[in-house]
Amino acid sequence: MIRVAILGYGNIGRAAEAAINAAPDMELAGIYHHNDSLEDMQADVALVCTPTREVEQYATRVIEKGICTVDSFDVHTQIYALRQSLTILNQVNRAVSIVSAGWDPGSDSVVRALLLAMAPKGITYTNFGPGRSMGHTVAAKAIAGVKDALSMTIPLGTGVHRRMVYVELEEGANAAEVEALLLKDDYFAHDDTHMIVVDSVENLNNVAHGVNLVREGVSGDTHNQRFSFNMTINNPALTGQIMVSCARAAVRMQREGRYGAYTMIEIPPIYLLPGDEETLIRSLV
Amino acid sequence: MIRVAILGYGNIGRAAEAAINAAPDMELAGIYHHNDSLEDMQADVALVCTPTREVEQYATRVIEKGICTVDSFDVHTQIYALRQSLTILNQVNRAVSIVSAGWDPGSDSVVRALLLAMAPKGITYTNFGPGRSMGHTVAAKAIAGVKDALSMTIPLGTGVHRRMVYVELEEGANAAEVEALLLKDDYFAHDDTHMIVVDSVENLNNVAHGVNLVREGVSGDTHNQRFSFNMTINNPALTGQIMVSCARAAVRMQREGRYGAYTMIEIPPIYLLPGDEETLIRSLV
Repeated sequence: MIRVAILGYGNIGRAAEAAINAAPDMELAGIYHHNDSLEDMQADVALVCTPTREVEQYATRVIEKGICTVDSFDVHTQIYALRQSLTILNQVNRAVSIVSAGWDPGSDSVVRALLLAMAPKGITYTNFGPGRSMGHTVAAKAIAGVKDALSMTIPLGTGVHRRMVYVELEEGANAAEVEALLLKDDYFAHDDTHMIVVDSVENLNNVAHGVNLVREGVSGDTHNQRFSFNMTINNPALTGQIMVSCARAAVRMQREGRYGAYTMIEIPPIYLLPGDEETLIRSLV
Repeated sequence: MIRVAILGYGNIGRAAEAAINAAPDMELAGIYHHNDSLEDMQADVALVCTPTREVEQYATRVIEKGICTVDSFDVHTQIYALRQSLTILNQVNRAVSIVSAGWDPGSDSVVRALLLAMAPKGITYTNFGPGRSMGHTVAAKAIAGVKDALSMTIPLGTGVHRRMVYVELEEGANAAEVEALLLKDDYFAHDDTHMIVVDSVENLNNVAHGVNLVREGVSGDTHNQRFSFNMTINNPALTGQIMVSCARAAVRMQREGRYGAYTMIEIPPIYLLPGDEETLIRSLV
């Protein structure tokens, strides 16, 4: 049995716990909250389910104990740097980290890589939503006069998105002033953004999300090759599940002595799955 | 530059040639026809583009020269056995084979593996077509009284398919008798099959094909996770392209000393792509 610890117990941590409990080859090796000591951690792999900005710090503490990590670090522009710094740390401590193991970055990245191999020339569009954007929601909440907010991402196709921002105003705040601040915020200034004042943001909350990933391209010298990948999902449930599947890959790669940090496009897909190789190949290939 | 040879020069071999010519990191190392000697072959990897039943025999001759191979062997029930026998041969000859590197088996297999990791419980349906089924077309052509035939696969959903069989009759053949033989043939007896007599099968030919792969499943304990992968493609162009992308992976795995035979679900997706790791990770993840 693979012993899997959870660090951070928000939406993703709870979803990961359910995925560990459902896995035939894993057992829960403890749940660690924000300020817990990691001194007693006895695990093969830890899922770092903290906010993205705390991932590296927590992962470092775990890896220094020789324990593998999986995170769903989601700032696309900083993924490579995280992978590089964790690579060195893992090589020193003989462990393996899978970084950015969610659905985007994560499984969508695998689909993008596969489609590029299938049609090397062409354009890939990743259309997100409808679903809540965490980054945009946090940005909207930071606007003066906003008591609570929810920013929904609406796909308009070809990678263009509309932002539907539902806001609960603070007592005495002026809706027009809040809207003016919102529309010039860098998170919203470049997209078609609509602000809607509501009585309760809490009542609108829904963790559903979606993706429509499209590629139209060329295989060899043949044009008009068309591909799409679609999903409508519970966001934390999928993220937690993918982290758990990647935990399996991390432990296997550690056993093979392939110490370092990897993104999902660097992992053989079969490593994500429980069960013996022959059964998996016979049923999936 | 990776030197890539082509064995067999039908639809797939020609498509592979175009994909090699379009690849920035490859050069064509010769095209070998059916009875050519392989004595002088100077290549890093050979694409075995022969009919499926001849794949093992030709791959064996190539691997014995220490040259990697890629094939698109497509008899699902025999893939594991091929992988096992080529694994031993590659280990002896310090080479790598990628077997069943097409779209199904192949890229569809990767999608099925990924979706299983994302939602471990649930059902995956692979719906094929509309497009020509090679196996069914060959079976229809073998029926007494059939001069030429084309069997189209029509997806009805949930993995159920209709067979539309267009036949050109031999002089004096009786359509009702041919249809009776066709409908009881094991290739057609289990599906909704329609036979249509035409003047010219040649005029109907079209190498387009399609896939609609659907999974509805459970991530952790969360149900109603929905995924689909769709494509409409030129069949030989995609198969040839995927074989060429897998040739890159074969050579890389040989350099890493990972001698053996692998299906596509056992390969890191990034190995399929040209270019440096950092650029690929930054652009795809």
